[in-house]
Amino acid sequence: MSDPILLTPGPLTTSATTRHAMQHDWGSWDAAFNRLTASVCADLVEIAHGGDEYVCVPMQGSGTFAVEAALGTLVPRDGVVLVPENGAYCTRILTILERLGVAAIALPFGEDAAVDAAAIDATLAREPRITHVALVHLETSAGILNPLDAIAAVCRRHGKRLIVDAMSSFGALPIALAGSGIDALISASGKCLEGVPGMGFAIVRRDALDACAGNARSLALDLHDQYAYLRRTGQWRFTPPTHVVAALRAALDQYRAEGGQPARGARYRENCRTLIESMRALGFVPFLDAGIQAPVIVTFHAPADRAYAFRPFYDAVRDAGFILYPGKLTRVETFRVGCIGAIDAADIRRAVAAIARAIESLGIALQPA
Amino acid sequence: MSDPILLTPGPLTTSATTRHAMQHDWGSWDAAFNRLTASVCADLVEIAHGGDEYVCVPMQGSGTFAVEAALGTLVPRDGVVLVPENGAYCTRILTILERLGVAAIALPFGEDAAVDAAAIDATLAREPRITHVALVHLETSAGILNPLDAIAAVCRRHGKRLIVDAMSSFGALPIALAGSGIDALISASGKCLEGVPGMGFAIVRRDALDACAGNARSLALDLHDQYAYLRRTGQWRFTPPTHVVAALRAALDQYRAEGGQPARGARYRENCRTLIESMRALGFVPFLDAGIQAPVIVTFHAPADRAYAFRPFYDAVRDAGFILYPGKLTRVETFRVGCIGAIDAADIRRAVAAIARAIESLGIALQPA
Repeated sequence: MSDPILLTPGPLTTSATTRHAMQHDWGSWDAAFNRLTASVCADLVEIAHGGDEYVCVPMQGSGTFAVEAALGTLVPRDGVVLVPENGAYCTRILTILERLGVAAIALPFGEDAAVDAAAIDATLAREPRITHVALVHLETSAGILNPLDAIAAVCRRHGKRLIVDAMSSFGALPIALAGSGIDALISASGKCLEGVPGMGFAIVRRDALDACAGNARSLALDLHDQYAYLRRTGQWRFTPPTHVVAALRAALDQYRAEGGQPARGARYRENCRTLIESMRALGFVPFLDAGIQAPVIVTFHAPADRAYAFRPFYDAVRDAGFILYPGKLTRVETFRVGCIGAIDAADIRRAVAAIARAIESLGIALQPA
Repeated sequence: MSDPILLTPGPLTTSATTRHAMQHDWGSWDAAFNRLTASVCADLVEIAHGGDEYVCVPMQGSGTFAVEAALGTLVPRDGVVLVPENGAYCTRILTILERLGVAAIALPFGEDAAVDAAAIDATLAREPRITHVALVHLETSAGILNPLDAIAAVCRRHGKRLIVDAMSSFGALPIALAGSGIDALISASGKCLEGVPGMGFAIVRRDALDACAGNARSLALDLHDQYAYLRRTGQWRFTPPTHVVAALRAALDQYRAEGGQPARGARYRENCRTLIESMRALGFVPFLDAGIQAPVIVTFHAPADRAYAFRPFYDAVRDAGFILYPGKLTRVETFRVGCIGAIDAADIRRAVAAIARAIESLGIALQPA
């Protein structure tokens, strides 16, 4: 039986070409691998429209490792970070800051509401001690797109530093760093770039990075050290996940061939539209308003019918070849379906057909729209 | 042309079977992947002879990430760590402790000398404020094997905690944790187990781990949190490097099939013996005395002939299909040749033949023994 299709926000279904790139071993000290690293970093800066103003620093581990590295390196001990909060990934940033001993101010929004730039504006005006804002661009908890450009403009106006967790948006949604004033934008290999998981990266304003030598209280997660060593030697400081880097190189080649961000975003939007329309036809109700729904992962209300429970529903859909994702909201029972990875609208239609069969076989009643 | 053979201490040459295991995508939330993680962890505890006393905590990133996680989680803020120092990986532990703000005492040995258990004994007697010893089992800088059992016995006698960086020894050399008193032993996927790089792991005494909730000042590198979540959910806290885990599972299957640690160690010893003998026949001189040379990586003195420079020598050997490793010693010019990975004595003989041709083509004079 072929592998199930992953309708999850990473790890996701990759192409055979990407996986095939892991059939080789690489010496981490060798010039060929150094060229691989350099070309991946150059492409990532280009995708972010970073120009000469930004550099890419790769980081071993999951995306959260890169987020902690960025916060721990770029925010000084006496910094105060405003964290607009509309989901679990915002909360995770607050937890990281607490561990690092950095003062943070949470600005809560609902789990079903986008972050409001005007509220950030008002908070920055009211709390001059704030030095940084840490924003989650796309809150995967519900699938909300937060208004990055408007928030970056507010931060520029107030002269505050902005650090962006763009884990689930980078590559799929338009982001232009040059001139944005953003200090750092973080994502990972196994998200919308469609590589395999195992490395994160931060695209950092060169001036901001140069200014923070000695800040980090971690050796492994020191973004400045990692960059300084990379610049000096062409190598990662500690053993890189060589096969993951090679897979990302292959994934980036396919990304360019597809047509870059506009094409990737268009395919995901079509996946998302197909998903929402066909799920609505079955009687499933999306959790978010269409205006703030990012085309990456869609949260659906769990069926109200008492015959429904996530586990058997998940298992039935999995046995049909599709892996769904549990909900992550605190107050409402939901489940999630990802739209990203090496999949298209036909895969989504097959997945929804499998969901329809699961609902029927489990005897779950829905009210089709 | 086929890939060069990596004569490096990781990443190393893996088998086609191990690389083939990365041809599948895995959902990190799915039961199939949870079983994969559990089986890998169970095997690692078994290889370490940990019995019920020890648990395995996997950690994303390179081995250094797992070392920092172990030190940052297991050593309390007011701990004092004795670090016997005979190479760069010992020095790295001192750097990590400095970043973490934990007091450390270095006990220096030469880069060509094994750590002396009697000197540790004397230091522990003299400095009662020491709470922990952090030992590198196999110092890859020169390739020295430090006497783990004798040092563990000294620590037990003094009632001190022992944390062991077994990065380059685990799987190849005998280690028996149960009853040793050792708090944690750390290694990684891409070393003597012959997986691909991208994850580390700590095999931790259950009681020691249970006692250190809240110690870590890092979220990503919190070994206690990682274990608690894994035990509760079967999942890694943050996105795991799924393909790397699958490759390690395949590598562990091959490890068992080969005959486990005794067989793996015997193959590496034969690689090492073949390497040293045939390099000596060419006129190369090993840096270490045979008594402290681990069968993992061998440091050779660079040829005295002025026609020698590492770079062209490396390039010539690389063009013949073998990747060497630079020296890492501070006072003597050397280079290193690894004996580990999915290679045998015939590969080593071919590598030494390539080295002989490189020496000849570069006009480097040696005095064969």
